[in-house]
Amino acid sequence: MKNKLMLALLATALTATAHAQVKTEDAIKWRQSAYATMGWSMARIKANVEGTYNKDEVIKAANVIQAIANSGMGALYVPGSDKGKGWVDTRVKPELFTDGAKVGKIAGDFNQAANELAKVAATGDAGAVKNAFGKLGGTCKSCHDDYRNK
Amino acid sequence: MKNKLMLALLATALTATAHAQVKTEDAIKWRQSAYATMGWSMARIKANVEGTYNKDEVIKAANVIQAIANSGMGALYVPGSDKGKGWVDTRVKPELFTDGAKVGKIAGDFNQAANELAKVAATGDAGAVKNAFGKLGGTCKSCHDDYRNK
Repeated sequence: MKNKLMLALLATALTATAHAQVKTEDAIKWRQSAYATMGWSMARIKANVEGTYNKDEVIKAANVIQAIANSGMGALYVPGSDKGKGWVDTRVKPELFTDGAKVGKIAGDFNQAANELAKVAATGDAGAVKNAFGKLGGTCKSCHDDYRNK
Repeated sequence: MKNKLMLALLATALTATAHAQVKTEDAIKWRQSAYATMGWSMARIKANVEGTYNKDEVIKAANVIQAIANSGMGALYVPGSDKGKGWVDTRVKPELFTDGAKVGKIAGDFNQAANELAKVAATGDAGAVKNAFGKLGGTCKSCHDDYRNK
C-alpha cells in the first residue's frame, strides 16, 4: 500500500516535470512573441506621447508590458536555446546565458521601469508617462546592445 | 494668427493619425505574437493544474492573459488584414471581419473568462483555477473553430 502511494506520487511528480519542460523551439517562439507583444505596446505608447494622448489606451499598453515583464520570462531561456528557431532564428547572444550578474541587473532595471510606467500610466500624467517610457526604452536598448545580434 | 493655430492643430492631428495607423504586416505579426504569448501562459497554467500547483506561477501567467485580453486587440484587425503575413501567413477567416455581433459576443466572453481566471488565480484556489481555465479555453476554441483556418 505504501509502495503504491509512493509510485502514485512519483508518477505525479514526473508528469509535472514533463509538463513544465519547455521545448527549445517553443521557448524561442514564446520569447519572440512576448517581446513583439511588448513592442506593439511600446509603439502604442509612443504614438500617444508623440500624438494625441489617450489615457485608456496607454494604460492598456502599459499593463501588457508590466504583466509580461513580471511573468518570469527567464524560464524561456532554457539551456541550449542560444541557438535555434522559433518564428525565426533567435538573435540572442550566448553571453546572455553566462553573464549572470549583468543580465540580472538589466532584467531588474527593466522590471522596475515597467512597473513604474504602469504606475504613472494609471494617473494619466502624459509627461510622467513620457519620462517613464524613455527610461523603459533605455533598459530594452541596453539588453539589445549587449545581448542581441543585429 | 488664427490660421496658423488651425494649421498647427491640423498638423498635430495628422501626426497622431499617422502614428496610430498600423501596417498590415505589423498588425498580423502583433496579433500572432499576442496569441502565442497567451498560448505560453495557457501552457504554464495547464502544467500547474495538471501537475504540481505553484500559486505564483499561475498568477503571473493569468495576469499576462488578462492584460492582453483587455489590451484592445481589435485594433489589430485593420481593414485588409484578412490576408497577409506577419511571422507567417495569417490564418484568420474573412468572416471575422464581417460577423460583428457574433465576434463581439465571443470577444466579450473571452474577456470575462480572462478576468475571472486572473481573479481566482490570485486566491490560489487550484480547483477554481482549473474551472476558470477550462472556461477560458472554451472561448479560445469557439473563435478558432469559426474564425481560424486549420
